[in-house]
Amino acid sequence: MLTDIEIAQQTKLRPIAEIAEELGVRTEELEPYGRFKAKLNDDLFTRLQDQPDGKLILVTAINPTPAGEGKTTTTAGLGQAMAKIGKKAVIALREPSLGPVFGIKGGAAGGGYAQVLPMEDINLHFTGDMHAITSANNLLCAMLDNHLQQGNLLGIDQRRILIKRCVDMNDRALRNIVVGLGGKINGVPREDGFIITVASEVMAILCLAKDLKDLKERLGRILIAYTYDGKPVYAKDIKADGAMTALLKDAINPNLVQTIEGTPAIMHGGPFANIAHGCNSVRATRLALKLGDYCITEAGFGSDLGAEKFLDIKCRMADLKPDCIVVVATVRALKYNGGVPKAELSAENVPALEKGVANLRAHVENMHKYGVPVVVAINRFGTDTDAELQVIDDCCKSLGVEYALSEVFAKGGEGGVELAKTVCKVIDETESQFKPIYDLDKTVEEKIETIAKTIYGADGVSFTNQAMKSLKDIKALGGDSMPVCIAKTQYSLSDNAALLGRPTGFTITIRDLRLSNGAGFVVAYAGDVMTMPGLPKVPSAEKIDVGEDGKIHGLF
Amino acid sequence: MLTDIEIAQQTKLRPIAEIAEELGVRTEELEPYGRFKAKLNDDLFTRLQDQPDGKLILVTAINPTPAGEGKTTTTAGLGQAMAKIGKKAVIALREPSLGPVFGIKGGAAGGGYAQVLPMEDINLHFTGDMHAITSANNLLCAMLDNHLQQGNLLGIDQRRILIKRCVDMNDRALRNIVVGLGGKINGVPREDGFIITVASEVMAILCLAKDLKDLKERLGRILIAYTYDGKPVYAKDIKADGAMTALLKDAINPNLVQTIEGTPAIMHGGPFANIAHGCNSVRATRLALKLGDYCITEAGFGSDLGAEKFLDIKCRMADLKPDCIVVVATVRALKYNGGVPKAELSAENVPALEKGVANLRAHVENMHKYGVPVVVAINRFGTDTDAELQVIDDCCKSLGVEYALSEVFAKGGEGGVELAKTVCKVIDETESQFKPIYDLDKTVEEKIETIAKTIYGADGVSFTNQAMKSLKDIKALGGDSMPVCIAKTQYSLSDNAALLGRPTGFTITIRDLRLSNGAGFVVAYAGDVMTMPGLPKVPSAEKIDVGEDGKIHGLF
Repeated sequence: MLTDIEIAQQTKLRPIAEIAEELGVRTEELEPYGRFKAKLNDDLFTRLQDQPDGKLILVTAINPTPAGEGKTTTTAGLGQAMAKIGKKAVIALREPSLGPVFGIKGGAAGGGYAQVLPMEDINLHFTGDMHAITSANNLLCAMLDNHLQQGNLLGIDQRRILIKRCVDMNDRALRNIVVGLGGKINGVPREDGFIITVASEVMAILCLAKDLKDLKERLGRILIAYTYDGKPVYAKDIKADGAMTALLKDAINPNLVQTIEGTPAIMHGGPFANIAHGCNSVRATRLALKLGDYCITEAGFGSDLGAEKFLDIKCRMADLKPDCIVVVATVRALKYNGGVPKAELSAENVPALEKGVANLRAHVENMHKYGVPVVVAINRFGTDTDAELQVIDDCCKSLGVEYALSEVFAKGGEGGVELAKTVCKVIDETESQFKPIYDLDKTVEEKIETIAKTIYGADGVSFTNQAMKSLKDIKALGGDSMPVCIAKTQYSLSDNAALLGRPTGFTITIRDLRLSNGAGFVVAYAGDVMTMPGLPKVPSAEKIDVGEDGKIHGLF
Repeated sequence: MLTDIEIAQQTKLRPIAEIAEELGVRTEELEPYGRFKAKLNDDLFTRLQDQPDGKLILVTAINPTPAGEGKTTTTAGLGQAMAKIGKKAVIALREPSLGPVFGIKGGAAGGGYAQVLPMEDINLHFTGDMHAITSANNLLCAMLDNHLQQGNLLGIDQRRILIKRCVDMNDRALRNIVVGLGGKINGVPREDGFIITVASEVMAILCLAKDLKDLKERLGRILIAYTYDGKPVYAKDIKADGAMTALLKDAINPNLVQTIEGTPAIMHGGPFANIAHGCNSVRATRLALKLGDYCITEAGFGSDLGAEKFLDIKCRMADLKPDCIVVVATVRALKYNGGVPKAELSAENVPALEKGVANLRAHVENMHKYGVPVVVAINRFGTDTDAELQVIDDCCKSLGVEYALSEVFAKGGEGGVELAKTVCKVIDETESQFKPIYDLDKTVEEKIETIAKTIYGADGVSFTNQAMKSLKDIKALGGDSMPVCIAKTQYSLSDNAALLGRPTGFTITIRDLRLSNGAGFVVAYAGDVMTMPGLPKVPSAEKIDVGEDGKIHGLF
């Protein structure tokens, strides 16, 4: 089989203007970036605002494993398959970060014959959104350090600065640094660090903002530091919000691209799914709902992280109502959940699979708790045996949930026809009764407890002393009125990455909390979260090259 | 009078596709970025490579003063004026850095009715070139620190790392930092610092590279560190060159925009004019020469820095032959050079002007030494008196040089007709006998001495002990075969910013040298050069805002 980039480079892309025209987008509503990428501007939002919405389909997954689940591939493939059965679908996806591109092989634009293109551009600078976010965040930090340098009128305590500079790069040497060295003219020395751009609150804000006005207000509300006497300092206090908004005025507009089969895909924003909510922008989802009869979107990691946040944070804030949730799983990943080592996943192992399906069961049951119809998508591999597929069949039947096998990686849209038909049937037959899992008027602790018990299956929640201290500060600043965003390992339903399947008898420990005041949620840390990855021993950057024809090699 | 941004926002821009079509650029050679910006791709280069070149006009200036000279305004206005007299001119300019935009008021796209548009976009992210350069440079740094972390096979001495990370922001707190803190998993601790993106060698390289192949070779040649046993380490030794080239594959293509009157302008690249050569990219100049009968370009700071490097570095490397050099001056700036304080420049002061024209005289005489015909452009202000203009007239006559008054700021192209006619006449009547000021086969010291004596008017050059030490290393690596790039204050012909006019009786002190091996020149530091500016007490960022209509306010 060809590699992803080979398949991508063999595809003859259609001009993006043509894709847009078919969607009913007018020329003046489209801002082209080259011939195969474009931004959709505010004129389009204004014109479509009173149009009825299409159906909203969320693609989520079981807990990720080293075996790979293919969530983005399934999302792209489902969009392609919808076209095959005569439905007008628009895909809404996150845009990838540069960091992983140069680190460990792994794109974020699907794979095989279910990809979003042009993959090289999407995985490199795309339309510059990441860079705009990096600049806006770093302007805020530069203005803050400049405030310290120029007399510190607000009395900011340099030991209590909450924001960090960011870079769209895996660069561990920047995790913990000391800045402002070199004497009086070179700034105020303090401990600092960089995070990767997708982990910044500015990214989360861009993805939740309705429009420029909302964006500016949210940016202004970012809690950046405390003063020496313990008062909060917000971005607007140092007058950074206007210039940050100026830097983001184009980045706020969603990007239109296409799948390998010409299905329209709106890719926009890509916050982490642990310390942030892990979904593409609200604006992208809204546009996809207006432009398509079906909007197919996805959320990061497994449903315990990505879907929970999609449903409890994004849908609540943006007043979205999902009509169907697709839970992606593979036989291989479920066997891994049943205890099979990665190297042995190709061999049939029915007992392990029977054990591992507990993970799928948990995710399906959890999604049902939101009142939304669920479909299971089994991303099929050549090594899956009939006996193994029978285990899946039994599991889904006992859950009362429809499922379909998907072969979009190998066959493109054609390989997802069964899945598309199943999804449409479920949407037609079952009305969604969507309701978030907790009410906003509960306290932060109550919200965390609800998620921990209802979604993770924990017995309870404990808070460290540090967490209790932070909680007090956050409550004083109005944190109880906000949804919570739990940063937890993606590999387990629990807060212990080693507990696969469907763990029981555990409690969740909240080590610290943080107010993402501009994004509008309280982040609760149930474990260490890496906000600045490092490069591996042999970074994939070493193999990336450009031929004299301008073609990129070795990207994936 | 309206502000620059008000004039810009009142202008009805023509679609960039229309501007391109008039230039003879084909649809497939143009990559649009929105409706008013585009990149010109390799197909255009290939198609035009055997076309004859137009005439090359360099716009330079006297030493910059706080009074402002309006070099970019004159460049844009001269282009506009060429159209008024029926000539096909294409402007080639540097693209601005974000740093100054948020620091001290001051755009880099002209002013008044001689501007390059869309000014908001050009001054913010434009087509992403700066961000691509930032990413490429920072990938190199991340790979270097990762090499240290992953066993340091090459034996790189972390005390002798020569490259720095960069950010396109004025951020003094990042000048001197310590990275890699926090224990074994967080990198190898070392002293480090950030520079502003335009000061990076990657920027200089992008501006000198002929094509992707040349770009990759130059990137691979960047000297990044020395080993513990004193051996040089280059970017290609840590296999960073391919991925860096991939990040720059679009950034290498010049950007097409337009002036306020629809004159085509190619803006591309913007290296510092002290530690680098201070001109737009070779590719932009080449394209402008192929597409226009006249290419009007500029170089940074005064002619002692920008023009000298344009002529001795860029023209030599790219085999360009300038046909005319325009030296921009103002009566106000020349009075400042004659000792008048900034606050009193509006009052007539003939004696001070008679003293200050010595600066203009030096720049004109210097440019004549290159064998290129010179025209003086006096950027006229309302406060200039007849008696003062008579002093200019006398000065130019005694120099045997043609001059013209320019009012392009207030009147656009119409205000530059006299200048345009003078330039065309001089080009028609006088053939350029261009020759660089020094030969490449001289030593580094001889080259520096030639520039210091011939251009700066110094009695000689002295080298500090540090400089002698660096020189030895650089010679060992082949530095004698390269041109030199002197980093000196822009405010004086000497290396002392306080010496205005035409100083004599001074020597130039070279404090250190550095090999920009990928760019292909030796940088000699004649003074402290700030490669990371800071924000002022009240940064202009505080006043920048975006209206709900998406319009930017307060940018200039």
